[in-house]
Amino acid sequence: MNVSPPPNVDALLVKRPENVRYLSGFTAPEDAWVLYRPEAPLLFTDARYGQQAPAESRIAVEIVNPREGYGFLEPHVAGLRVGYEARHLPCADLERLRAATSAEWVATENLVEQARRVKTPEEVERIRAAAALADRGLAWLLPRLRPGVRERDLALDLEFWLRREGAEAAAFDFIVASGPRGALPHGVASDKTVEAGELVTLDFGAVVGGYHSDMTRTVAVGAADGEMRRIFDVVLQALEAALDAARPGVAARELDAVARCVVEAAGYGPRFVHSLGHGVGLEIHEAPFLNARSDEVLEPGMVITLEPGVYLPGRGGVRIEELALVTTNGIELLSHSPRGWTEV
Amino acid sequence: MNVSPPPNVDALLVKRPENVRYLSGFTAPEDAWVLYRPEAPLLFTDARYGQQAPAESRIAVEIVNPREGYGFLEPHVAGLRVGYEARHLPCADLERLRAATSAEWVATENLVEQARRVKTPEEVERIRAAAALADRGLAWLLPRLRPGVRERDLALDLEFWLRREGAEAAAFDFIVASGPRGALPHGVASDKTVEAGELVTLDFGAVVGGYHSDMTRTVAVGAADGEMRRIFDVVLQALEAALDAARPGVAARELDAVARCVVEAAGYGPRFVHSLGHGVGLEIHEAPFLNARSDEVLEPGMVITLEPGVYLPGRGGVRIEELALVTTNGIELLSHSPRGWTEV
Ligand SMILES: [Mn+2]
Ligand SMILES: [Mn+2]
Repeated sequence: MNVSPPPNVDALLVKRPENVRYLSGFTAPEDAWVLYRPEAPLLFTDARYGQQAPAESRIAVEIVNPREGYGFLEPHVAGLRVGYEARHLPCADLERLRAATSAEWVATENLVEQARRVKTPEEVERIRAAAALADRGLAWLLPRLRPGVRERDLALDLEFWLRREGAEAAAFDFIVASGPRGALPHGVASDKTVEAGELVTLDFGAVVGGYHSDMTRTVAVGAADGEMRRIFDVVLQALEAALDAARPGVAARELDAVARCVVEAAGYGPRFVHSLGHGVGLEIHEAPFLNARSDEVLEPGMVITLEPGVYLPGRGGVRIEELALVTTNGIELLSHSPRGWTEV
Repeated sequence: MNVSPPPNVDALLVKRPENVRYLSGFTAPEDAWVLYRPEAPLLFTDARYGQQAPAESRIAVEIVNPREGYGFLEPHVAGLRVGYEARHLPCADLERLRAATSAEWVATENLVEQARRVKTPEEVERIRAAAALADRGLAWLLPRLRPGVRERDLALDLEFWLRREGAEAAAFDFIVASGPRGALPHGVASDKTVEAGELVTLDFGAVVGGYHSDMTRTVAVGAADGEMRRIFDVVLQALEAALDAARPGVAARELDAVARCVVEAAGYGPRFVHSLGHGVGLEIHEAPFLNARSDEVLEPGMVITLEPGVYLPGRGGVRIEELALVTTNGIELLSHSPRGWTEV
C-alpha cells in the first residue's frame, strides 16, 4: 500500500469507493472519504457508522455530518494544495469543495489505482480464498452440467452454492454460454437449454473480504465437433504460452502478443476479439490491463488473468482463463481447476 | 416521461445510468449516453451493442467509438448550449467534453430525476410485478422462519427463491434483523440465529424489468414480549394514519408528520430515527423523499414507501413498510402481504 501523491499536491481527497476501502479497510466506502497524506491518512464518515468505522478502519476516523456540506474538510486542508480524483469526482462536488474550503484543488487521475496494481500479502490471501471457493464451486457444478439444463439455472445454482459456502457476492453476472452462444465473449447466462454435443463456457468468480476471483472453463457436454475441439487446443496452447512467458519485467503487450501469436499461427487471429487479460482485486477488472496498447510491465504482487479466446460467430467459441499472482521469478496460479479438454 | 430542459439550454447530455435507461429503455446504460432534446432524443453506445441497442431503445441509436473521446458529439451539439448532470458527471469528463466540442456546457441538477418521480403506466406495471413477486416470496419464507435458523440463510433463501421465480436481482441487501438486532434500522442479515420469542424484521424487494419493489414486515417467532407488542401496535397505527392521509396534494413533510405524531403521542418519538419513506423505481431510493425537510407534494403516479419504525437500542425494534402508488384520489397499495401482528 504505497500511494504517492504527486509532488505538486500536499494531500489527496479520495472518494471512489474501491479506493476508500483500499486505503482504510472500511466496508461502507460509498459513505466515506479519505484525506490521504502518507503520514496521517484520515477517514471521514457519518454517525451511522460511529461504531463500525473505528472498528474496521486501519486509519484514524472522524465522524462528520455530510448533510452540512464539505465544511468538515476545511480544518484539515486550509491553505493546502489538495488533489481530487478527476475521473470520479462529480463536477458539482468540486464546486462545493471550492466553496467550502480554502484549499487549492488540483485534478489527479489514477493515483490510488496505480498503487492497487501491486497487492499486499493480505490482499493476495483474500483473492486466493475467493479463487479456492470458485474451484470448489466448479467441481460441484460440473456433474450438474447435463443436456436439458437451462444456462440461467446453472448460473443461479453456482452463485447460490458459492454464497452459501461463504462468498459475499458473485464477482459479476456469471457467463454460461452454450453451443452457438459460446461465440458471444460476454454471453451472460440465458434461458437457453444446454444440448448434447455442445461446448459450454463458464466464466465466474467469488468475492471474499471485498476481493474478487475470475476463472473461465470451456467444457464439452458429451463428444463435441471436430473444429470446436481444434479451437480448444489452440486456445489452450495460447494460454500455456502466456503462462510460460509471464514473469516480472515482461511487458503486458508482449504477453498479449505471445498468446495472440499462437492463435494467429493457427489461422484464428481475427477470432481472438478481446485483450489477453486484466488485473483483479477490489474490482473484477482493474489495472494492469493486458492488451496490445498497454504500457504496463509485470511486477511481483500483481494479480492478473490470462484469458485467450476464439469465437466463431453463429457456431460457438472457447475461452480458458487462469488467475495468477506474479511472483519474484514467474507466476503462481491462484485458480486450480483442471483446464484440459473435459467432457461431462 | 416528460423531461423539460430549463429554458437556458438547448439539449441535455445524460450519463447517469438510471437516467439513460429511463430515457431510452436500453438495458446496458453504463455504456451509453443520451443527448436529450424533447423532439429528437438520441442514444449513443459502442459497437458491442450494435444489435442490442436498436432492439431495446425507444429512441434513435448511434453507434460510436468512445475510445476516441467525445468527438462523436460535436456534429450534434456544435454551437449549442448543452446541460450536463453536474451531480454525476466526473470533472475529467467535463474537461474532455469542452475540449472535444464547440458547445457551451451548462451545469444542471436533477432534471431527469424530477421527471422520474411520476411513473408511466408501464413503469407502474413493472413495480407491481416486482411487489407481487415479493409478496409470494414472503408467503414462501414465513413457514421457514423458525428458532435456530440463521438470519443470513433466511436472506439467501428468500433472494434465491425470488430470482428463481423471475426476479432479475435482489432489490438491495436484504435486512433480516432478529431480537436485539431489530434495533438497527439497517440490520443486514448476519450470522445470528433467530430465537424463540424474538421479533424479526424482514426488509426486502425484487427487481423486474429494471424496477424495484420494497416492503418490510416485522413478525414474532412465537409469543413475544409485552413492550415489543406495544411498539408494534404504535408503528402499525402510525402506518395506518399515513396510509389514510396519503393522496395527491398532500405535502411529503405533512405525511411524515402524520406518522411521527402517532409515534410521539405514544412516547416513542425519539425512537423513530429515520424519515417516513421514499420514492421507488429504477432505484430503490429515489425522489420523492418523504421527510420533515421535504418540499415535495404527492402527485398521481408517484410510487412511494411508507415505513415508520421504532427502535429500542439493545432490545429490538419494529418497522412496517408498504409500497403505494399515488392515484387521482388516494393511494393504491402495491404490497399486499398481511401487515397485522403475526406469530410464526
Ligand atoms: Mn476475466
Ligand atoms: Mn424502504
